[in-house]
Amino acid sequence: MDNFNFYAPTYFAFGRESEKKTGRLVRRFGGSKVLVHYGGGSVKRNGVLDAVLNSLKEEGLEYVELGGVKPNPRSGLVYEGIELCRREGIDFILAVGGGSAIDSAKAIAAGAVYEGDFWDFYSKDMSVRNALPVGTVLTIAAAGSEGSPDTVITHEDGMLKRGASGEALRPRFSVLNPEFTCTLDAYQTACGVTDIMAHVCERYFTNTKNVETTDRLCEAVLKAVITEAPKIIHNLTDYEARANLMWAGMVAHNNIVGVGREQDWSSHGIEHELSALYDVAHGAGLAVIFPAWMTYVMHHDVNRFAQFAVRVWDCDMNFANPELTALEGIKRFKEFLRGIGMPTNFRELRAEEKDIPRMVETLGVTEERRIGRFVPLGPKDIENIYRLAL
Amino acid sequence: MDNFNFYAPTYFAFGRESEKKTGRLVRRFGGSKVLVHYGGGSVKRNGVLDAVLNSLKEEGLEYVELGGVKPNPRSGLVYEGIELCRREGIDFILAVGGGSAIDSAKAIAAGAVYEGDFWDFYSKDMSVRNALPVGTVLTIAAAGSEGSPDTVITHEDGMLKRGASGEALRPRFSVLNPEFTCTLDAYQTACGVTDIMAHVCERYFTNTKNVETTDRLCEAVLKAVITEAPKIIHNLTDYEARANLMWAGMVAHNNIVGVGREQDWSSHGIEHELSALYDVAHGAGLAVIFPAWMTYVMHHDVNRFAQFAVRVWDCDMNFANPELTALEGIKRFKEFLRGIGMPTNFRELRAEEKDIPRMVETLGVTEERRIGRFVPLGPKDIENIYRLAL
Repeated sequence: MDNFNFYAPTYFAFGRESEKKTGRLVRRFGGSKVLVHYGGGSVKRNGVLDAVLNSLKEEGLEYVELGGVKPNPRSGLVYEGIELCRREGIDFILAVGGGSAIDSAKAIAAGAVYEGDFWDFYSKDMSVRNALPVGTVLTIAAAGSEGSPDTVITHEDGMLKRGASGEALRPRFSVLNPEFTCTLDAYQTACGVTDIMAHVCERYFTNTKNVETTDRLCEAVLKAVITEAPKIIHNLTDYEARANLMWAGMVAHNNIVGVGREQDWSSHGIEHELSALYDVAHGAGLAVIFPAWMTYVMHHDVNRFAQFAVRVWDCDMNFANPELTALEGIKRFKEFLRGIGMPTNFRELRAEEKDIPRMVETLGVTEERRIGRFVPLGPKDIENIYRLAL
Repeated sequence: MDNFNFYAPTYFAFGRESEKKTGRLVRRFGGSKVLVHYGGGSVKRNGVLDAVLNSLKEEGLEYVELGGVKPNPRSGLVYEGIELCRREGIDFILAVGGGSAIDSAKAIAAGAVYEGDFWDFYSKDMSVRNALPVGTVLTIAAAGSEGSPDTVITHEDGMLKRGASGEALRPRFSVLNPEFTCTLDAYQTACGVTDIMAHVCERYFTNTKNVETTDRLCEAVLKAVITEAPKIIHNLTDYEARANLMWAGMVAHNNIVGVGREQDWSSHGIEHELSALYDVAHGAGLAVIFPAWMTYVMHHDVNRFAQFAVRVWDCDMNFANPELTALEGIKRFKEFLRGIGMPTNFRELRAEEKDIPRMVETLGVTEERRIGRFVPLGPKDIENIYRLAL
């Protein structure tokens, strides 16, 4: 196990009616004038936004609204938000929505107190040390951004999709009411499920030895998701399954299951090119990329993939030929994704073979600057993985 | 799943040489004059205390030492510590040791800023809302007190062993260097292992339905401990296994695996009478009590015990008679405890049948004031459980 630091000081208010605590939580964590940041019309239509604004009013908090966050959130709105924060003297940013609203809120929070261009944090591997405090009211179990220090933004100049991170970006509080996720359709839900599983898998496939405790925790989250997700696809308003998925989504990404081990994260990078280019949901892109990545790198550590197959997918271990067990695990993962309605290849995603060279190029990987820690991948590897996903 | 709040803002510095960060962490979390609180001679003999004091000196921090904490920590030293804090103007309490040193430090932290008797928090079910900040340097994987808001103290007036809790008691930081646990003997280690497993089991046996995510997380911690503990008993200086156990001990008790569900906690109460009366290690007492409690309450929910048997102990499910599976799980748990050298009955613990009525009485349980949420237990039940442990 590697040395590590772990610090996850987010206050979680979980359950029915937890949104009523929003105003009190903003106050507790030092906010007095709030930027309420959200996406399109869904939080308006389903009453979530009204409930949150009422809670702010009851606490006597001033607020300014900034809606319009899109999936794969864009830099344009971030610049607008930063400007708004400065003009209005905002001291707290409240995201209401999914990972996109939260990631956009984090970008605004970092940019509002930074003299340069906020994109520096995304393009220059600079850790975010100062930011306005952020709180979230989550409406989709997926990104885990509600408990993480991470954010991903797409810059409209070149459609570059890049991530930034920093402890200052970890939300002060997150309100998780599973009821809010009950209005999501099956496709949106399945995209979230895939994202959650991908967050675990990016941590699970590691070269660090002797990580049984976090291995088991990773497997636990995956097993829970495998049990709960189909229940939701079958009955979209299954509160209990939604609640289990929502907590699993947080645990998958606040890093309690990933400490002390080298993590991979190449699939996220490879996927970002897909979602940036075709504007498809991140989860759908991951469903296409992850099994292809697994197939491509499997031989680097067959036994780890066999462990994944046996412990997560209940495969029988083939002791004579562990490779067959490993392959069976990947097959069951892919079947599971198909079963919840995810695309698992370029065709189903409406991505095109002809764009592969362009995506490889935009990703910026070279022989010297590879991505991924489990198996560091060069441009030819990335191309092969895209082709395996055709 | 039940509604819940979860807030665990402890900073963990984990790994080799992490103790060198102690001074910086005290400073970061607001300390300038520190009470360093520890137990007997072991932290002096093995150099841990010197390393920690050096780190404080390097940071230019003033400190006062208070050693002498005993296992099952007593009220006398707590009163002394409170007096010392007031006299010296202490603003931060640093525990160096195991659960006993940490729990004693928490009691001092609560008492130092409270006008009444600190014992009020332990005897009157009062939550601790204000306390001096506490940090810890952990030397045994067991109590989980390094990441929890809980403390247990024995009052010398009547040898009453009671717990208190409150968010103000959650350590600001905890330094976890698994090397520090490598000097523990097999018995101390096994006591810690049992305590960790008990913390999970108190949460696992619940009447709350639809808690798959936390069920899986509980099972993950237990599986990891079952794999790692025997490695340590076989080779006491196995750093990697020690590291896995140490993180498992924190995860088992900071409540991330226990949120959203009713928890039991009767076995801890029943055990406290044993360790208070005979001054045996808490873990050893739990090894005696927990299997007896399981056997006694099993029929309340046979399927939950069958799940425990199948998922944690790899038993085959007996679909024709799940009760046999449930019993097999308890049997394997008991065998595991024996295998790591724990006592599993009164005789091995040198506890005596004749003391049972006295322990039942001291526990203060009545027909109306029962303990335990999974199965609320009255005095006759407690007596039966003690007798099952003979």
